[in-house]
Amino acid sequence: MSIEELTIWTFDWVPEGPRGFVRDLRLRWACEEAGLPYKVGTVAFEGRATNHLEQQPFAQVPFLSDGDLEVFESGACLLHLARKSERLMPRDQAGETEVLQWTIAALNSIEMVSVPWWFLKISGDADNALTGWLKMRLDQIEAVLSERDWLAAGRFTVADLLMADVLRVPDVRAFGERPASEAYAKRLTERPAFKKARADQIAHFEAADRV
Amino acid sequence: MSIEELTIWTFDWVPEGPRGFVRDLRLRWACEEAGLPYKVGTVAFEGRATNHLEQQPFAQVPFLSDGDLEVFESGACLLHLARKSERLMPRDQAGETEVLQWTIAALNSIEMVSVPWWFLKISGDADNALTGWLKMRLDQIEAVLSERDWLAAGRFTVADLLMADVLRVPDVRAFGERPASEAYAKRLTERPAFKKARADQIAHFEAADRV
Repeated sequence: MSIEELTIWTFDWVPEGPRGFVRDLRLRWACEEAGLPYKVGTVAFEGRATNHLEQQPFAQVPFLSDGDLEVFESGACLLHLARKSERLMPRDQAGETEVLQWTIAALNSIEMVSVPWWFLKISGDADNALTGWLKMRLDQIEAVLSERDWLAAGRFTVADLLMADVLRVPDVRAFGERPASEAYAKRLTERPAFKKARADQIAHFEAADRV
Repeated sequence: MSIEELTIWTFDWVPEGPRGFVRDLRLRWACEEAGLPYKVGTVAFEGRATNHLEQQPFAQVPFLSDGDLEVFESGACLLHLARKSERLMPRDQAGETEVLQWTIAALNSIEMVSVPWWFLKISGDADNALTGWLKMRLDQIEAVLSERDWLAAGRFTVADLLMADVLRVPDVRAFGERPASEAYAKRLTERPAFKKARADQIAHFEAADRV
């Protein structure tokens, strides 16, 4: 199984709104940071609720193939990729555990509140019952980011990649003044690997407009 | 660093409602399954919003100490414990990756919807805007559980422990008729290790009532 066999799977097309935010970007970004070569494969956006349940039982993207191995859940894919490159995660047990901890914190302490809150907001309920909970979580991560530049192991890891992707969402960024979180999101999204991943994703979906 | 040094940290007391559901139970259950000896440490429920931010920046429990290492986020603690015992996770790469994938699916595809939905429900909004999303997710996991007994590697792993803990929540269980999910939650919570973990947690909080 060679690293040339990495394929990041995403939709063939999405509407303009989510472009630059579809979560294959997390995997593209990780591969770009690590210098891991990858291809991009697609499943049809049309019929997505049922056309790739074999690969992703919640009908989402991305998923990853790595030779014979298939992995879904962007967080799991990121931790899987992190095992391939020390640029994404240190190799000592303390460092690895810290990366694991903060990766799951991004998913289960921040995104677990920010995504449902955002969902209620775009459903027309901006001042919804999750607002207080989101404020608390964003204040808590602001306190953490006020005291350090990186979440784990004193350096960039895949945990920062994920946390920054969660915090860079415009509605989350606009949710009150949180200078450390804003500086963190800005600093992370200024990394060349992020910029390339984002530009590539947008170009991928734009190319489908022209078909 | 010896395995005798595992300490699961939880509150010294909680009200009756959450007893049997506080997430230190996940860690107790994993240790019981694996036969890993552990102690239980406490932080005060009173003042919990700020009294253990050094250990858990979101002011939650549980967190775990393992010798000099400290880990928070129940999902991260479970994956950390899983590295100590093959009873919790197989040692081959395909098996490990599948456990990682389903552990994160429990956290980020199911619990990310079920917990905010439940929060809205107990806030007085039972028929809330997350209901359709929760129905979809529970139908999707029902389809998975209709075709297999275990999520990963064809046998019990820490991914089942976590998914069962997410699905056993009474309000989630009562959300429509889903026989495979119900049978799964029932089967998992009939395991002696779960029963002991639950009884021990309840006894721990009850003992504090008598102080």
